[in-house]
Amino acid sequence: MKSSHLNIIADENIPALQALLGPLGTIRTLAGRSMTAADLAGADVLLVRSITRVDRALLAGTPVRFVGTATIGTDHVDQVYLQEQGIAFSSAPGCNADAVVEYVLTVLYNLAAEQGFALRDRTVGIVGVGNVGSRLQRRLQRLGVRLLLNDPPRQAKQRENATAESFVSLDTLLDEADILCLHTPLVCGGPHPTQHLLGVPELARLRRGAIVLNAGRGAAIDGAALLEIARARPDLTLVLDVWEHEPLVDPALLPLVRMGSPHIAGYTLDGKIRGTHMLYQALCRHLGLSEPAPLQAFLPAPSVARVEAGAGLTALELMRLLYDPYRDDRALRATLGVAPAERGHAFDRLRKEYPVRREFDTLAVAGHLEPSLAEELGALGFRVELS
Amino acid sequence: MKSSHLNIIADENIPALQALLGPLGTIRTLAGRSMTAADLAGADVLLVRSITRVDRALLAGTPVRFVGTATIGTDHVDQVYLQEQGIAFSSAPGCNADAVVEYVLTVLYNLAAEQGFALRDRTVGIVGVGNVGSRLQRRLQRLGVRLLLNDPPRQAKQRENATAESFVSLDTLLDEADILCLHTPLVCGGPHPTQHLLGVPELARLRRGAIVLNAGRGAAIDGAALLEIARARPDLTLVLDVWEHEPLVDPALLPLVRMGSPHIAGYTLDGKIRGTHMLYQALCRHLGLSEPAPLQAFLPAPSVARVEAGAGLTALELMRLLYDPYRDDRALRATLGVAPAERGHAFDRLRKEYPVRREFDTLAVAGHLEPSLAEELGALGFRVELS
Ligand SMILES: NC(=O)c1ccc[n+]([C@@H]2O[C@H](COP(=O)([O-])OP(=O)(O)OC[C@H]3O[C@@H](n4cnc5c(N)ncnc54)[C@H](O)[C@@H]3O)[C@@H](O)[C@H]2O)c1
Ligand SMILES: NC(=O)c1ccc[n+]([C@@H]2O[C@H](COP(=O)([O-])OP(=O)(O)OC[C@H]3O[C@@H](n4cnc5c(N)ncnc54)[C@H](O)[C@@H]3O)[C@@H](O)[C@H]2O)c1
Repeated sequence: MKSSHLNIIADENIPALQALLGPLGTIRTLAGRSMTAADLAGADVLLVRSITRVDRALLAGTPVRFVGTATIGTDHVDQVYLQEQGIAFSSAPGCNADAVVEYVLTVLYNLAAEQGFALRDRTVGIVGVGNVGSRLQRRLQRLGVRLLLNDPPRQAKQRENATAESFVSLDTLLDEADILCLHTPLVCGGPHPTQHLLGVPELARLRRGAIVLNAGRGAAIDGAALLEIARARPDLTLVLDVWEHEPLVDPALLPLVRMGSPHIAGYTLDGKIRGTHMLYQALCRHLGLSEPAPLQAFLPAPSVARVEAGAGLTALELMRLLYDPYRDDRALRATLGVAPAERGHAFDRLRKEYPVRREFDTLAVAGHLEPSLAEELGALGFRVELS
Repeated sequence: MKSSHLNIIADENIPALQALLGPLGTIRTLAGRSMTAADLAGADVLLVRSITRVDRALLAGTPVRFVGTATIGTDHVDQVYLQEQGIAFSSAPGCNADAVVEYVLTVLYNLAAEQGFALRDRTVGIVGVGNVGSRLQRRLQRLGVRLLLNDPPRQAKQRENATAESFVSLDTLLDEADILCLHTPLVCGGPHPTQHLLGVPELARLRRGAIVLNAGRGAAIDGAALLEIARARPDLTLVLDVWEHEPLVDPALLPLVRMGSPHIAGYTLDGKIRGTHMLYQALCRHLGLSEPAPLQAFLPAPSVARVEAGAGLTALELMRLLYDPYRDDRALRATLGVAPAERGHAFDRLRKEYPVRREFDTLAVAGHLEPSLAEELGALGFRVELS
C-alpha cells in the first residue's frame, strides 16, 4: 500500500471522514449494508460501521490492507481471517465512553434534584467496569461518591496480576448500592455471561428506593422480570437507554420507566468524531506517518463556548445546557403513538436523526465560583476558568 | 403620616420587603390570611397579597394611611371604602407580565422545534390584549409573526378615542389563528364576560392542528367542553397554566394536555420583586420622597450572567437555560399520583415552593452572532452584546 495516495472505501455514515482522512487519499462512500467485494476492487483501506460484515466473502481478491471499524464492538469483523491475510485492523474502543458517563451523570443529577438527595450521600454500584464503567468510576470518585465495583472478568485477571482494584460480588452490590449502573457488554455463555444478569431474584433483592440504570446492553436485564418487578415495586426508579429486543421497546414497560431513551447514551458529536479520529490515528501509525493533529482540531465549535457564572449557579443548570435526558424520553414515549409495526423504525429514526449533543469539556465556566462548586464542576468534566 | 419613620405591616410572603422598604421604617410581617384590625393598631402602611381582605372591618379605627397590594388583581380590596377614608391605594398591575410573555414564548419555541414549524410562518391570535397580551404582541411583532388581536373592551374604548389598534372578532380569530393565546381576566356577566369564553362551539371551530394556550384565568375555557374536544380532536395541542377549578386539576384532562403547569407563568423572581418595587415607588411618591433606586438595584445576580456563543446557537438553547416548561409539566403530572384529597395542596405547594426563575433580560449573549440571530434574540428580550 503506497502511503502517498490511498484509495479509501467507507461507510457513508461515518462522520467527519473528509476532514480527517481527505488528505490521505481519495474517499468513496457507500451504503454500509450493501457493500460487496466488487466495490473494493481498487481499495487500499476499508472503513465500516457495525452493519457491514467484514470477512473472506467481502475481502478475498481485493487489495485492502487496512480495515477499520468506527465502532467499539467488533463482532461484525472476522479478525482471524484478517490476521491470516496480514490485513491490519483497528476499532474505536471507548470512543464514546465519556458520552455515556455524561449521560449517566446528567440523569443522576436530575434525579437527585427531583427526589431530594445528594449524590455524595449515596452508594453507586457499577456493574461492568470497562471503558465506560471505569471512566464513570473516576468521575464519581472525584465527586466523593461511595462506589461498589463488580466486574468478575477483570477480577479474575487481577488475581493473576495482583493489581489493586477492589471488586465486590453482584450480590453484595445489589444489597448495598442505592444506585446501580449497568455497563456490561452482551455475553451469552462462558464463565461470566451477562445475558439476563438481572432476573427476578436479583431485581427483587434491590434496596428500597433503588435507582437502576442500564446503558450497557438491553438483554443484561430480563425484560419480563423487570416488568414484573416494576409493577410490584413502585419504590424503584428505572432508567433505560437500552432495551432487550431493540429496536422494539416493550410498550408495557416504558410507562413504568422514569427515563427512557433510544440507545443514545453515547451519542455526542465529540464521541462520533472521536471514533473516526481513532481510525485515522491507527491508519497513520500503520503507514508510519507522523502523529496526526489532535481530535480538538476537528471538532466544531460548540453553540455555547463559555458561560459566566453569577450567584447560585448549580452544576445541573450547566448540564441542562448540554443535555436534557427528558427530551429523549419524550421522543421515545411518542413512538408508542405510532402503529406497532412502525415503532422499530421510529426508534431507529430517533437514533439516525439525533440532534447535536456536546460533551462537558466543550463548555468553559468563568466568573466567581465558590471553591466547592469549582471543584465539583472540574470533577464532572467542565473546563473551569478561575478568575 | 410622618415620612421620617413609618410603621409598616406586611404579608410575610411579599419578597424583598426589607431590602426595599427597610430604610423607610419598621416592617412587621404577618400571615396574610389571619390579619386583624388589632394587628394594625400602630400601622401607617399596610402591604398585602390577594389572601387578605382589606375593608372597613380590617381598617376602621387604625391609623393606616396607605394600602398596597403586591398583586395585579384588586378584588380583595374595597377601594370605595379606601377612597371615602382618604387612604391612598396602590397595586402592581403588569408586574409579572413579562414573565408570562416569556413563558408563552418558551412554550411556543419548544413546540415549534418539536412539531417542526417556524413561528414566523404561523398566525398567533391574542385574546385579551392588556398588560400581558400587549407585551406579547410587541415581542411577537418584532419577531415578524402575524398577529390577530381580540379585546372587545379595548375595542369599545378605542371607538370613542379613535386610536389605531386593529382588533378582530373572536370568531375571526378562531377561524384564522394557528395559535391562540388567552390572556383575559375572569369576568362574569357584563357586556364582555370571559367566563367560558371558549365553549364547545368555539373550540370546535379551531383550525386543524391549532395550539391553544391559556395563561389568563382557567374558567375562560369551559373545562367540560375542553375535555370533550381534547378527546375528539387529537390534532389540537393544549397548553394550560390555569385551570377552571384551581387548585383542583381535572385528572381526566391533564393527560390530554401537552404542557400543564400550576399557575406559574408569571412566577419569575424578577416579577415578584418588581411587584414589591412598584409598591415602594408608589409609597415614595405618596410621601413626596425622591424617586427611589431602580428595580435593577434590588435584583440578585442571575446564576448565569453571560454566555459566549459559538457556532449554531439557537434561541431555544438560551431559553432552556432560563426556563423549561416541561419541568413544571412533570411536577404537575406527579400530583396525579397523590390521593385526590391531597392534590389541591400539592398544586399549591408547587406554587409556594417554586424554584428561582429569571427573566430573559438577565442573560447577556456575547460572541459572534449571525445578524439574524442577534435580531431574534433582541426581539425576544435577551441582552445582546455585539462584538
Ligand atoms: N448506550 C450506549 O449508547 C452505549 C455506548 C457505548 C457503549 N455501550 C455499551 O456499554 C457496554 C460497555 O461498553 P465499554 O466500552 O465499557 O466495554 P468494555 O468492553 O470496555 O467494558 C465492559 C466491561 O464489562 C465487564 N464484564 C463482562 N462480563 C461481565 C459480567 N458478567 N459482570 C460484570 N462485568 C462484566 C468486562 O470485564 C469489561 O470490563 C457495551 O455493551 C457497549 O455496547 C452502550
Ligand atoms: N398565569 C399566570 O401566572 C398569570 C400571571 C399574570 C396574569 N395572569 C392573568 O392573566 C390575565 C391578564 O392579565 P393582565 O395583567 O394582562 O390583565 P389586564 O387587565 O392588563 O388585561 C386584560 C385584558 O383583557 C381584556 N378583556 C376583558 N374581557 C375580555 C373579553 N371578553 N374578551 C377579550 N378580552 C377581554 C381587557 O380589556 C384587558 O385589555 C389576568 O386574568 C391575570 O390574572 C396570569
